[in-house]
Amino acid sequence: MPEAAQGDSRAPETLADLGEWGLIDRLARFAPPRQFDDDAALISCADGAPGQEIVVSTDVLVDGVHFSDPTTAAEDVGWRAAMANLSDLAAMGCPTALGLTVALVAPPSTAWHWVEGVYTGLRQALDSCGGVLLGGDCSSGPVRMLAITALGRLPRSADGGPIRRRDGRSGDRLLASGPHGLSRLGLALLCGEVVQGLDQLEPGLRRALETEAIRAHRRPRGRFDVIHALADCRPPAVPWRVAGADSSDGLLAAVLSIARASGCGAALSRRHLPMAPAMATLGQGPDWCLAGGEDFELVLALEPHWANALQARLPGSRLIGTLTGSEAPEGLHWLEDGRAIATANSGFTHFLST
Amino acid sequence: MPEAAQGDSRAPETLADLGEWGLIDRLARFAPPRQFDDDAALISCADGAPGQEIVVSTDVLVDGVHFSDPTTAAEDVGWRAAMANLSDLAAMGCPTALGLTVALVAPPSTAWHWVEGVYTGLRQALDSCGGVLLGGDCSSGPVRMLAITALGRLPRSADGGPIRRRDGRSGDRLLASGPHGLSRLGLALLCGEVVQGLDQLEPGLRRALETEAIRAHRRPRGRFDVIHALADCRPPAVPWRVAGADSSDGLLAAVLSIARASGCGAALSRRHLPMAPAMATLGQGPDWCLAGGEDFELVLALEPHWANALQARLPGSRLIGTLTGSEAPEGLHWLEDGRAIATANSGFTHFLST
Repeated sequence: MPEAAQGDSRAPETLADLGEWGLIDRLARFAPPRQFDDDAALISCADGAPGQEIVVSTDVLVDGVHFSDPTTAAEDVGWRAAMANLSDLAAMGCPTALGLTVALVAPPSTAWHWVEGVYTGLRQALDSCGGVLLGGDCSSGPVRMLAITALGRLPRSADGGPIRRRDGRSGDRLLASGPHGLSRLGLALLCGEVVQGLDQLEPGLRRALETEAIRAHRRPRGRFDVIHALADCRPPAVPWRVAGADSSDGLLAAVLSIARASGCGAALSRRHLPMAPAMATLGQGPDWCLAGGEDFELVLALEPHWANALQARLPGSRLIGTLTGSEAPEGLHWLEDGRAIATANSGFTHFLST
Repeated sequence: MPEAAQGDSRAPETLADLGEWGLIDRLARFAPPRQFDDDAALISCADGAPGQEIVVSTDVLVDGVHFSDPTTAAEDVGWRAAMANLSDLAAMGCPTALGLTVALVAPPSTAWHWVEGVYTGLRQALDSCGGVLLGGDCSSGPVRMLAITALGRLPRSADGGPIRRRDGRSGDRLLASGPHGLSRLGLALLCGEVVQGLDQLEPGLRRALETEAIRAHRRPRGRFDVIHALADCRPPAVPWRVAGADSSDGLLAAVLSIARASGCGAALSRRHLPMAPAMATLGQGPDWCLAGGEDFELVLALEPHWANALQARLPGSRLIGTLTGSEAPEGLHWLEDGRAIATANSGFTHFLST
């Protein structure tokens, strides 16, 4: 039987067959080359001339997929939705946000009180980053959904510029702007998951950790302060070249995406995982640090002197490793034993059990 | 019984209670004053300094509300979704589009073939306007949905500038860039609605009208050419001041929104409705011309010499009336008899039965 005829008899390929990353790969073919490399797009303000750029990032959140009533109050839905997008602006190098547009879909039976809460949270997040609600659209639909597009302005000068995944080089130090895993712990606490070792913490320490984790989950903060610190502590002899991403998809995913886009490997130090000390004693602590996600910290690859200066400047930040030549299989190894460990996007926990 | 207690016993206010415009009015309170006046937002490229601006517009389309399989093929869904947004850029004065971002929500069972068709249509629309796919996001969800944000660049010079609803003045001539009602006729034909008088048209004329109407519904075109023509035919002594909107919500809605935002009334000429001659013979022709919607033409209010020059320059355009002092009740009257006729957003057909 000819292959074409066999092909015709197959069930049509669905989005479930492709998976999220397979779908994004195919959609990227409709855009210019490398347009989808970063979390946000750069748009030149002046046709052809170098100068200021606008950064634009779009995220969509669907009820039951990205948020739900049991874990997230309306104001927190708005804050998190806005901040997830605003964080992409910081990750691209914007010192402030300009604002965002919101497409809201909701069933007609939705209470105005819920919508009011969402926009109150959005507005609070915008106020904290210097942006405003720019516009949007709304429609009825069978499910609550928010699609947000955030816009920021990127200065092009010696004291600022873009941060892209592709701009790393072998020898750059990797810096995490803050502790990781707290947001995932907060989600676990809100959902009543068992957290191994939590009951062995001293009660005061436990209460403080729980409070911090739930706050980290409900009210994450985009790290615009890191962009200002980057500009302030750049050694005069070092030109602007910063690779980076935010850690919304997890710390390890951020490191791997920077290494791959830069054509490098990455060496991480297991002893320098960016975790609060109390977090490190939890059974799931290292897993959640590396792959919990939604911490919205920045992960940067910098010239070593600049990285050291930034680390000294930012309380809570940590130097976690180095970009290397691409000698390690799949691009990553741990510094402690020098042993190369295979990895894949879908198998972060493999790192932890070796 | 105290009022507060009575209030507590009421059912919570829903979005259905507010309606679309009531909801938008409330959401506008979360934005700076007058931020929601136009279909798109203006963002300055340089902090504080006058110069180039970026225009940003967001629209959301939901399956079953804004499109459906019986009337719209996947490629047409993509084209129309993109063009509805791109038209907002033209309506704000952009001579070209920069591009757009897309948030796609779809059930996992959705065929890749449908998504491919949508993005093919999006890309065709972008190619026709000079823009590119800038980025986006995707998520699973129970309904197919597209939220699109379009971006354009606005020159600030003697030969270009913003077009806003609020910039009209008494004495300005109103110009429609092309015929109206065709998209609504196309929808009627695709849905099998009875069109009064269609069977009395000469067969060749009827076929031509049907073909044009279905094309107008499936493949509307943003009128970027009008922006170029505006710049080319501006009389040297007339500075850039143009009020306008696109007619996506209907011709009369566009006229009224411009008049109201400008603090003016509007006088329209019933003999100069912008309709194709064959369209004017249909029973629903004048209704659909005034309120059919989705024609995506531009409705502009201009200094009279400029308006005359533009009308001479643009085949198919028509001078339809004048902005007046706000003496007319509810802001609108017809020129033919000078009689003032009350109006409301929801009652366009009242105009036609008097």
